[in-house]
Amino acid sequence: MGGTQQEARPLYRDPTAPVDTRVRDLLPRMTLREKAGQLNQRMYGWDAYRRTPDGEFELTEALHAETERFAGLGALYGLFRADAWSGVDHTTGADAAHGAALADLVQRHVVASSRLGIPALFVEEVPHGHMALDGTALPVNLTVGATWDPELYEHAAAHAAAELRARGGHVALVSALDIARDPRWGRTEECFAEDPYLAARLTEALVRGMQGETGAETGHTRDGLFADDKAPVVLKHFAGQGATVGGRNSAESELGLRELHEIHLPAARAGVRAGAAAVMAAYNEVDGMPCSGNRALLHGLLRERWGFRGIVMADGLAVDRLARITGDKVSAGALALSAGVDLSLWDEGFTHLQEAVERGLVGEDALDAAVARVLRLKFRLGLFDRPYCADRPVPAPAADRGRALSTALARGAVTLLHDDGRVLPVRPTVARIAVLGPHAATTAHQLGDYTAPQRPGTGSSVLDGLRRLAPPDIAIRHARGCALTGDDASGVPEAVAAASAADLAVLVLGGSSARTPDTDFAANGAARTPVPEMTSGEGMDLAGLRLGRAQHALLDAVTATDTPTVVVLVQGRPHAVPEAADRAAALLTAWYPGPWGGDAVAEVLLGHAEPGGRLPVSVPRSVGQLPVHYNHKDTEYGSYVDESAEPLYSFGHGLTYTAFAYGPPCLAEDAAEDTVEVDITNTGRRRGRTVAQLYIRRLLTPVWPRTLELRDFRSVGLEPGERRTVTFPLGAGRLAQVGADLETAVLPGTLEIRVAASSRAALRAVPVVLRTDGQSFTAPAETPL
Amino acid sequence: MGGTQQEARPLYRDPTAPVDTRVRDLLPRMTLREKAGQLNQRMYGWDAYRRTPDGEFELTEALHAETERFAGLGALYGLFRADAWSGVDHTTGADAAHGAALADLVQRHVVASSRLGIPALFVEEVPHGHMALDGTALPVNLTVGATWDPELYEHAAAHAAAELRARGGHVALVSALDIARDPRWGRTEECFAEDPYLAARLTEALVRGMQGETGAETGHTRDGLFADDKAPVVLKHFAGQGATVGGRNSAESELGLRELHEIHLPAARAGVRAGAAAVMAAYNEVDGMPCSGNRALLHGLLRERWGFRGIVMADGLAVDRLARITGDKVSAGALALSAGVDLSLWDEGFTHLQEAVERGLVGEDALDAAVARVLRLKFRLGLFDRPYCADRPVPAPAADRGRALSTALARGAVTLLHDDGRVLPVRPTVARIAVLGPHAATTAHQLGDYTAPQRPGTGSSVLDGLRRLAPPDIAIRHARGCALTGDDASGVPEAVAAASAADLAVLVLGGSSARTPDTDFAANGAARTPVPEMTSGEGMDLAGLRLGRAQHALLDAVTATDTPTVVVLVQGRPHAVPEAADRAAALLTAWYPGPWGGDAVAEVLLGHAEPGGRLPVSVPRSVGQLPVHYNHKDTEYGSYVDESAEPLYSFGHGLTYTAFAYGPPCLAEDAAEDTVEVDITNTGRRRGRTVAQLYIRRLLTPVWPRTLELRDFRSVGLEPGERRTVTFPLGAGRLAQVGADLETAVLPGTLEIRVAASSRAALRAVPVVLRTDGQSFTAPAETPL
Repeated sequence: MGGTQQEARPLYRDPTAPVDTRVRDLLPRMTLREKAGQLNQRMYGWDAYRRTPDGEFELTEALHAETERFAGLGALYGLFRADAWSGVDHTTGADAAHGAALADLVQRHVVASSRLGIPALFVEEVPHGHMALDGTALPVNLTVGATWDPELYEHAAAHAAAELRARGGHVALVSALDIARDPRWGRTEECFAEDPYLAARLTEALVRGMQGETGAETGHTRDGLFADDKAPVVLKHFAGQGATVGGRNSAESELGLRELHEIHLPAARAGVRAGAAAVMAAYNEVDGMPCSGNRALLHGLLRERWGFRGIVMADGLAVDRLARITGDKVSAGALALSAGVDLSLWDEGFTHLQEAVERGLVGEDALDAAVARVLRLKFRLGLFDRPYCADRPVPAPAADRGRALSTALARGAVTLLHDDGRVLPVRPTVARIAVLGPHAATTAHQLGDYTAPQRPGTGSSVLDGLRRLAPPDIAIRHARGCALTGDDASGVPEAVAAASAADLAVLVLGGSSARTPDTDFAANGAARTPVPEMTSGEGMDLAGLRLGRAQHALLDAVTATDTPTVVVLVQGRPHAVPEAADRAAALLTAWYPGPWGGDAVAEVLLGHAEPGGRLPVSVPRSVGQLPVHYNHKDTEYGSYVDESAEPLYSFGHGLTYTAFAYGPPCLAEDAAEDTVEVDITNTGRRRGRTVAQLYIRRLLTPVWPRTLELRDFRSVGLEPGERRTVTFPLGAGRLAQVGADLETAVLPGTLEIRVAASSRAALRAVPVVLRTDGQSFTAPAETPL
Repeated sequence: MGGTQQEARPLYRDPTAPVDTRVRDLLPRMTLREKAGQLNQRMYGWDAYRRTPDGEFELTEALHAETERFAGLGALYGLFRADAWSGVDHTTGADAAHGAALADLVQRHVVASSRLGIPALFVEEVPHGHMALDGTALPVNLTVGATWDPELYEHAAAHAAAELRARGGHVALVSALDIARDPRWGRTEECFAEDPYLAARLTEALVRGMQGETGAETGHTRDGLFADDKAPVVLKHFAGQGATVGGRNSAESELGLRELHEIHLPAARAGVRAGAAAVMAAYNEVDGMPCSGNRALLHGLLRERWGFRGIVMADGLAVDRLARITGDKVSAGALALSAGVDLSLWDEGFTHLQEAVERGLVGEDALDAAVARVLRLKFRLGLFDRPYCADRPVPAPAADRGRALSTALARGAVTLLHDDGRVLPVRPTVARIAVLGPHAATTAHQLGDYTAPQRPGTGSSVLDGLRRLAPPDIAIRHARGCALTGDDASGVPEAVAAASAADLAVLVLGGSSARTPDTDFAANGAARTPVPEMTSGEGMDLAGLRLGRAQHALLDAVTATDTPTVVVLVQGRPHAVPEAADRAAALLTAWYPGPWGGDAVAEVLLGHAEPGGRLPVSVPRSVGQLPVHYNHKDTEYGSYVDESAEPLYSFGHGLTYTAFAYGPPCLAEDAAEDTVEVDITNTGRRRGRTVAQLYIRRLLTPVWPRTLELRDFRSVGLEPGERRTVTFPLGAGRLAQVGADLETAVLPGTLEIRVAASSRAALRAVPVVLRTDGQSFTAPAETPL
């Protein structure tokens, strides 16, 4: 360790001292330069090391220069990131077996570079599994949203955190807060849902799974220390990024504050309540105030009102973007720090914080507060006490457990949108299946953006899954038919021939976020110009929601044969393919189901599993009717002249292989808390699950209401003929609303409660009316920006 | 006059007493029922009378019932309205010759029904000319916006007011405040522009033209009395109606307050400053607060901050719509009155105001304040002193003057979007012109929504105009080609044959707001289901911006001939027809040019007039790239993967038959106020006009800036080779901005000033940089809601 120590063991080095005490002891010992260093996360992690010809790792001059510049290192981004942008693959990066050694190599250098021995945070992308070699790829968030299964997701998140920590990573960057309001946005796949309630429940599950109970600081057990297999989460992005105009990435958001509070803030609020260690300020502005420079948002709302004690990280280069309005990057850094950003990402602006303080652009107290928050997280991770993996070996969780969780999420997300009842699940009479389409025989398009290279042979396509799981006497034939993009339909005749010769055609179409080494990337890793067969992901916004022309030609041609066709959409956003519903015997969306998604789809097609998915977003008929979401204001708007304003499929929709009947909801007031009870009966012939969705519809209310608001849901499995009473509690703020003063509370009024299997069904469901007097139900207060 | 008078002449009857004194005298004499009556405007005016077989007018039982119910009548809507909805035409309504007699017949009954002799306000639709038989139809607002000519519009507005008053109408309802942000909205034609500055200048011109100087209460000349040929204006709609989601009529608006202040409020602010007598609360809500029930908007902002002393009228049935959140119409009326609505339109809610006061739902003070405002307007109109037209005969303005003004607006709005230089103005070598398309030979589609039936023979189509104005040796042939809507292309071959046999094809395509008696109307007069050939206007929102399929087939076929084609679009919204620019020799939009629009188009085609129009809205490439407007935030968003995010043609664009060169802008500080000077030269061979547009682009600013903001413009006519220095003053709040605290002021910062012939050209123009220190320029304070 560099530098000189005046004391035998300073207080901050005492593992038994409370975290805050240790922070208070350490901070005054630091120079301005050392403090500024703690707030920087400037390097791309893959520039910190290289692999020698004999497979060992060595540190680069770039890392040495960085640690020398800041007399240490605050945080290092993406040490394990592996993808087309970083250029890291199995020949150049650190796989699961070598990660801990690489992490320790870097950390030893960092600690040695720091006069006070301050270790670095290793911050990693874990959007749907650790984006590293051998990291288990989970399905993307939109797929997770389709499961409506927070419990399963919590297990998967815990697995991802354990993988991260086993390798030496510390902090997980995870998209969770963006609400999917415009499918043109390329990052729609990173959203859980169009709905704030569903997104909030999944965000809680994420935080609980990754951070665990202690990470949540509930009851301040063990001083908020993280278990060795748990990882602090940075929730991305705060706030309103799902509603930028035109679905354009990082464009402006014109949202009003009530819209922000009702739709875009609940997931963040839930994540903060669950104890999230950090949030990431979003690229976008909201009504003129850039999130990274918005003190009302980052300080007034997040810290003062919500009591958040964690870190605010800037998005990549977002601090420097503030120079557009401040004039230079020094003042951009000062603005961001003043506003509440603690830790920057790749920016130049934060490298000048010492100058900014010295020039009086920002006070040292703001700097100190930010440094204290960063140090606090390091103490909570135990990094001062056991900085190296060698000191705290975390066993990597079993790979087959990861695969099982990833597949379970995929399975639970396969959503049956349309079914004429003729072909699914695949009948015993089917002897020949044609598996067609550009997505049928590859896993590349199942993965989504922010995915590391997969080892050859990993995963299963729909063709793989059907070949593996279908009875051996079924003949399976494959034809690609066409490419994902473009209008080359030369392969269509072969596909038509295959379909015509089969008893059933399975046509797998959709979009793709697959990056390749040919991709042209922006400085923040977003794709800048598409390579063939890339239509989605960060930077890939679309003005049209149709599939590639050749895919439509293939769809038209295959469905024109006499062979019944099941269309499976693999996609990161809802594409507008209304003719698939018109012409196909059945239509499913698997979203991006992850590496083993083909198994999940095959299980559902063959009836080994139920189609468990429910729509987390409404599916539009066309781009012209955007926005479509179920929770619009109740303005009784009927239709456009030339098209319905209603989506093709509404939020919450998803058919099953059986049928369910919902009884009328009843208020039950004899329990400790008020509840609503509904009888649900499986009226079909198969076992199945229904996702009972509780919506409220406000009648008397001080602000204009939405048509429906989801406020609870339960997954209910029933045998044929079985009936069960499902009980929903009405406390815990479920009836609260954002009032005219922007405070969230239960206000006097009346409302309907409707329980149904989808938002559209809820509109037809029998309601029970409830009067709130503003006192029966209490809700935690929230305050406007 | 009914009732008993205790005094010889009460003070309120003294014409020499100040208006406010008269109001204060009258109000305490009124019963609660009489007061409530003053705030109601419940009847459709055409239900108040009928024509007898001998052509005389008689009053209906409905009117008698209404005046009996309220012991008088506050206001009567649409006594002269004539259109498909009202069913009024030349056989049933009052034309120019008979209007005053009808007005007096009604007014005598109202005055006689009122114990205190209070006359009624006759409120009329004057959206683009008085919507009455023989009212001169002006082009719609969007066309007015394309002229960039407030002075001409002021004259036209004055003419419309004089026509209204000559006939006995009092108050003019005029759309002015809606900003065109989404062309899917059927009422886009009622907007002046996508830009707040242009809309504000035209709103000022409207108020000045209709109300005159005295109406503006400037210096309180004559106590704010209106001249006999001037009409108080109700500015529609307040606020944010141009930005409802999805372009859906009266749907919600998610706008934040800064967006509202920057884009949607400036026209209202300008109209109020110019002295507008009234505003109409909009149907929509803004971020949860319905405008008709929003006290922060109608009272806090409008009355307290802006000092507005006029009337707030509700939109038709908008008060009753509040029952959605209040539970019943009595409380809906109370909510609207409390919020600041003075006068309702057709609602039931306001008929129960007496009950609402008696039940304590709203205070009598709120009722009194509203009544005082209504009475004040009646006094300002002189209605107590000379209630009848017979007492104050106003000569009807000359009809040919109306036609000249209407045609001048149309001429000034014809916008040359694309020109390959080959055919326009029509060359002397052209001997045969084919005039084609569903709009070519009819004026029905030139008029726009809210237009009264025209007398047969009124107006001129493009075919009419060319036949009248083209040299007699040019052979003109016509073929319709197809209908406006639908996909019947059976007429295309005839049109192709005509084009092939011509030297030039003029293809007139577009949309239409023509209502017919077949139209199905909602209770507020909006069209509910379209008749064949109706694609626009209130209630006619579109999810697609393409023309009818047959029109596209016609366009494809005609432009595929060897004959050069000029495409003229007649439309109330920008349709997305990018192929017209690709394939036609020239492309023009005439918007809805009004009855004589064909003359205007012919004049421009033939070179008798310059193409004077400049785009008041950006023209999108497709519906998928919405929103498009030039004044988006400066987020450097490039493009969608599959399409540019830039419009096909940008705000301010419009070619001329000559060419202009703009020199660099220079700051000149020697004058009394700071100015910017630009040298402009006509570098072409014809005389022409350029609209020099001054944009600012903020550099250092506390809130995220827009790429450009229009802040001034000048129309400059120059001879070939002529150069002129154009001077723009920089005072009067031109540099003010809406700050982080939502106050509008000149804030410290730097900005560029760019002067160019369009917003797109401004992006390439050489700027001059200006520093503002927050004191050099003063701006009137505005305050957030």
